[in-house]
Amino acid sequence: MEFVMKSIGVIHSPFIDKNQTPVQPAFSNAVGQVEIFPEFAEGLQDLEGFSHIILFYVFHESKDFSLRVKPILDDKIHGLFATRYPYRPNPIGFSLVRLLEKEASALKIEGIDVLDGTPLLDIKPYVPDFDVVLNTRVGWYGTRIQNKSRTGPMQNRNEY
Amino acid sequence: MEFVMKSIGVIHSPFIDKNQTPVQPAFSNAVGQVEIFPEFAEGLQDLEGFSHIILFYVFHESKDFSLRVKPILDDKIHGLFATRYPYRPNPIGFSLVRLLEKEASALKIEGIDVLDGTPLLDIKPYVPDFDVVLNTRVGWYGTRIQNKSRTGPMQNRNEY
Repeated sequence: MEFVMKSIGVIHSPFIDKNQTPVQPAFSNAVGQVEIFPEFAEGLQDLEGFSHIILFYVFHESKDFSLRVKPILDDKIHGLFATRYPYRPNPIGFSLVRLLEKEASALKIEGIDVLDGTPLLDIKPYVPDFDVVLNTRVGWYGTRIQNKSRTGPMQNRNEY
Repeated sequence: MEFVMKSIGVIHSPFIDKNQTPVQPAFSNAVGQVEIFPEFAEGLQDLEGFSHIILFYVFHESKDFSLRVKPILDDKIHGLFATRYPYRPNPIGFSLVRLLEKEASALKIEGIDVLDGTPLLDIKPYVPDFDVVLNTRVGWYGTRIQNKSRTGPMQNRNEY
């Protein structure tokens, strides 16, 4: 079954090279701006009450995918769906970011980890009641040998 | 800009009526099954190491949207993007669920809150390092007057 998605805005970030974007928002203090197309701006009402929001977007430079990948945070190959590698059958990404400021049709955000010009698909509020589970097992991510030279704030995003 | 997404599987759940689905996975103990189309099954390798996963899917019964909505968990109108209401410009939903069991091309999951037959777009592992923020403000959700008759495990999903 096919579904057609249309961007509702654009994410502006300091990252113009995909080799220079952070692995995850949790590793980024970068400030960016979410531009919402004017016809959707009314939907932002009350978003300013939330300190954190979730952005859904397209990995627009992702052209193809492999079902087995070596994520940036490990040296072993894993199934694609056990990673956040950006090259996926449906290249949908999500980032949990801090909302710093809201204007009529723009949001200033902190902790952005995407390329400048990333097409925005949706915004949802982050609510710990729904979104937090603390007692988890995290598979290979928990047992990996940390490759410190490849982690840190200025590496490929979302590729763990 | 338009993007074509294709389902990679189907979510099977006990919910066949959208008025009977839970508001959020956090309110659901329902067990369901994620069926992955065989051509994508290889991508599930190592997913079993994770106790919790995030499902991305299409709200396939969502046909239209309004930019201002009254979510099921409140009596006031809010901007659509400050809610998880399922009728959205891009009807993408996500659910954090517990992974109970993995077979070759199927996952048994707990805490499902979607309609039976929901088209699956993506699966990602849940990792508290990336996905947990505890010190948050949650806007209208935090100050709402709880309408107990409308909450609970068997109400419309995702409509807070």
